[in-house]
Amino acid sequence: MNDLTIGNPDYTFLIAGPCAIESTEQLELILNSSHPPKIVRGGIFKMRTNKNSFQGLNEKGIDIIQELKRRHDFHFVTEVSDPRQIEKVSSITSMFQVGARSMYNYELLKELELHKKPVILKRAFSATIDEWLGAAEYLKGLGDQNIILCERGIRSFDHKLRNMLDLGSVIYLKKNAPYPVIVDPSHAMGNSQYVIQASLAAIAAGADGLIVEVHPNPEMAMSDGQQSLSLPLYSELVEKCSKLSLVLNKKLQV
Amino acid sequence: MNDLTIGNPDYTFLIAGPCAIESTEQLELILNSSHPPKIVRGGIFKMRTNKNSFQGLNEKGIDIIQELKRRHDFHFVTEVSDPRQIEKVSSITSMFQVGARSMYNYELLKELELHKKPVILKRAFSATIDEWLGAAEYLKGLGDQNIILCERGIRSFDHKLRNMLDLGSVIYLKKNAPYPVIVDPSHAMGNSQYVIQASLAAIAAGADGLIVEVHPNPEMAMSDGQQSLSLPLYSELVEKCSKLSLVLNKKLQV
Amino acid sequence: MNDLTIGNPDYTFLIAGPCAIESTEQLELILNSSHPPKIVRGGIFKMRTNKNSFQGLNEKGIDIIQELKRRHDFHFVTEVSDPRQIEKVSSITSMFQVGARSMYNYELLKELELHKKPVILKRAFSATIDEWLGAAEYLKGLGDQNIILCERGIRSFDHKLRNMLDLGSVIYLKKNAPYPVIVDPSHAMGNSQYVIQASLAAIAAGADGLIVEVHPNPEMAMSDGQQSLSLPLYSELVEKCSKLSLVLNKKLQV
Amino acid sequence: MNDLTIGNPDYTFLIAGPCAIESTEQLELILNSSHPPKIVRGGIFKMRTNKNSFQGLNEKGIDIIQELKRRHDFHFVTEVSDPRQIEKVSSITSMFQVGARSMYNYELLKELELHKKPVILKRAFSATIDEWLGAAEYLKGLGDQNIILCERGIRSFDHKLRNMLDLGSVIYLKKNAPYPVIVDPSHAMGNSQYVIQASLAAIAAGADGLIVEVHPNPEMAMSDGQQSLSLPLYSELVEKCSKLSLVLNKKLQV
Repeated sequence: MNDLTIGNPDYTFLIAGPCAIESTEQLELILNSSHPPKIVRGGIFKMRTNKNSFQGLNEKGIDIIQELKRRHDFHFVTEVSDPRQIEKVSSITSMFQVGARSMYNYELLKELELHKKPVILKRAFSATIDEWLGAAEYLKGLGDQNIILCERGIRSFDHKLRNMLDLGSVIYLKKNAPYPVIVDPSHAMGNSQYVIQASLAAIAAGADGLIVEVHPNPEMAMSDGQQSLSLPLYSELVEKCSKLSLVLNKKLQV
Repeated sequence: MNDLTIGNPDYTFLIAGPCAIESTEQLELILNSSHPPKIVRGGIFKMRTNKNSFQGLNEKGIDIIQELKRRHDFHFVTEVSDPRQIEKVSSITSMFQVGARSMYNYELLKELELHKKPVILKRAFSATIDEWLGAAEYLKGLGDQNIILCERGIRSFDHKLRNMLDLGSVIYLKKNAPYPVIVDPSHAMGNSQYVIQASLAAIAAGADGLIVEVHPNPEMAMSDGQQSLSLPLYSELVEKCSKLSLVLNKKLQV
Repeated sequence: MNDLTIGNPDYTFLIAGPCAIESTEQLELILNSSHPPKIVRGGIFKMRTNKNSFQGLNEKGIDIIQELKRRHDFHFVTEVSDPRQIEKVSSITSMFQVGARSMYNYELLKELELHKKPVILKRAFSATIDEWLGAAEYLKGLGDQNIILCERGIRSFDHKLRNMLDLGSVIYLKKNAPYPVIVDPSHAMGNSQYVIQASLAAIAAGADGLIVEVHPNPEMAMSDGQQSLSLPLYSELVEKCSKLSLVLNKKLQV
Repeated sequence: MNDLTIGNPDYTFLIAGPCAIESTEQLELILNSSHPPKIVRGGIFKMRTNKNSFQGLNEKGIDIIQELKRRHDFHFVTEVSDPRQIEKVSSITSMFQVGARSMYNYELLKELELHKKPVILKRAFSATIDEWLGAAEYLKGLGDQNIILCERGIRSFDHKLRNMLDLGSVIYLKKNAPYPVIVDPSHAMGNSQYVIQASLAAIAAGADGLIVEVHPNPEMAMSDGQQSLSLPLYSELVEKCSKLSLVLNKKLQV
């Protein structure tokens, strides 16, 4: 990861990609866009509240990433929710993502600690900050800079937006914890029309980076289409976040 | 499980035992009490927010249960939080427990569905009723009567008690879902002085059963001592719940 | 109030009536039912989230109660949300009700303290127990037995039911506070089909009483029809609650 | 209010002052600071959870403001929580503030609608966005630009910070409602060390302004000292917010 800037206070880093890997074409369009992400996210094994929802391409998704890596230079991050998935995706990932539903899966965290790659640890739906930091302890062997806390919105009484983005947690953690902290504005807002504004607020709150959902054709997405940025909106995001980062004496690493 | 009454509307069933298996003596005292539980609960692999807390006796706990089963007639239920733990405890358990932190662990649920034993599915800290029912779908192959939903208190803004017991969920589920529903008053209240009253409320709300923490010596418990009933309080619980069940035309199965 | 049993540990008391006073006929039907309530509730000045909703009969409602009092023997309780409403309803009320939206209205509470009638103090939507007890302090001059705390469901992340009934608060308060505690199962559940079960759970939890919405014709109610018990359901409630109270060594005071 | 910029999209406006008016000297120090606020906030009638806490200077506070207005050019805003307080402070205020505890006090709102001055309407502790907008309807006669919604943090399960700042609500409201929206980072964070960062996030989220607590001597404050900015921190806030506003093509109006 020597070419990455995670944990470097001079940079805001951006992770972008689709909710789920759907096809080679889908990712080609993102990687050929005006701002090809250096770190691409994409679900291969999807966790779904409804067991009949699309559960990801599984092995086929791995093949797609392997093939794309021959033609494009990018880092890949994907979610694992079971210890037995780690080995399967290990060859294609630069870091692992632990989703909100798995934050308390300590057996998974213990296993990830052994794999020596950075882990994005999303906050559970109603995890207290102490519980979140407690989960991070299970990854301690990775080194603080490789434990990336991700605020993705918590559960509240109001349902106008998908979740309630808790930027206070970002402000608190940057003053009191040794880890990089990033924000997932896509899951927090649940609707692409609010994602750019939430991204700006996250950066102003002091977040070290963002992880956003981008899809070349959001209306056709197999999951999370409503909250995925189209490529033009993704460009707008990059430009606005770059400009804002400069005022805060940072550079945006796309 | 032919001798059990789970899902039989004529019975309120009671599961009791320590938070964690600590020693043979600890369980002997419970099994020799005035109301030896027919279904004993006890943690063998503990999930802990703090990684330095007591994490259970693991293999040694399995030996203790095996030995006790030679001398006592009881069913045993314990929590599994990783698919690889299932086989290890399979020989000693009549049913499995999925804890609040694992409710969204769908890979674990898929595996448990294959094991054909009843599963107690605790509600996650802030799971909506729909998410809880969605998780139950992953166990559907067990048959509705073997999917036991357990309300154990949700997370709220008030911290006077450990959790906020949501008996409305019990009332709702008994009218709208096909599963047995039980209540864990110990984790909900977090303090043994409130457990009996909460148990009575749960039964009056229509719960099919209770799962309570009992310890022969709560002050010396290695975990959850504050919320564990002493043996005298456990006797009081059994007597009061028996009396209340009768008014509701049910019998308490200890 | 000498004929009332509020605060008498030998009784469970019941307050029943429509959400809003709509007509003389509406109340006659309730007062002539098989279980005429000794304490009738009914809104005269309604607080409405939407300013275009029905806001109560105001002065006309007062006339209706005055007239009914000539023919029927009952106590009346109604909500006040502004200090200037107190005098207006003072001649017809035996006690006042402070709604969830007004719990923090300390100027209103200070005024009510001067009026020397019992006050039902509903818990605000997300009031901590400490805040609720803090509000009760503003009524201290009434004497503890005349400050009646009413749990009516708190706000949570789940919207299957109107509110989340927190019976843990009832259990906590009965052990730690000197006030009578009652439960409003109608607002908590938001649907009449769940109200009886919630009432039983409340009594088993130790509540001193209930305040329930009853309407002779719920489908035609001008507000809260969905959660109002029809007269037959109200009879069923009285019978079941009487039976349950007996097991707890109490008598139901209708 | 012709010299003010509320509702002017070219400006971010700042309201600053102490939690409670304590003395002439206290306000002189703020008004003589390097960035004297054009709009000063300060409590005269305080609402307190604990009835024995400092409840404000009342009439004496009014005198202090009157006197200061002879020597300084500023607008004053203070909270009213009872309709009978409105007239008392009317001569000294340019706008009124409705606190979180009073958002549902519709009788108060109806009265304020008659007074034709802008109203800052704080969000109740767990008000949904719809309830908040419903309350704003009670003020409709003032004109949309004079109904200023103020996000001040909502109640959540996490208690590391005083409240949970919901900047998603600001983003949502700026896209879907016609009112100016401001943020109170002092009450949201509850600790002065986090207030500047939260203010920057609020501006980046699209807030039209801020209302912050400032005290010349926070350790000696009679209320909310922990969250009040000292004068040097207040200067830092002004400078950072000015710089950030410029990137967003706005000017900060102090």
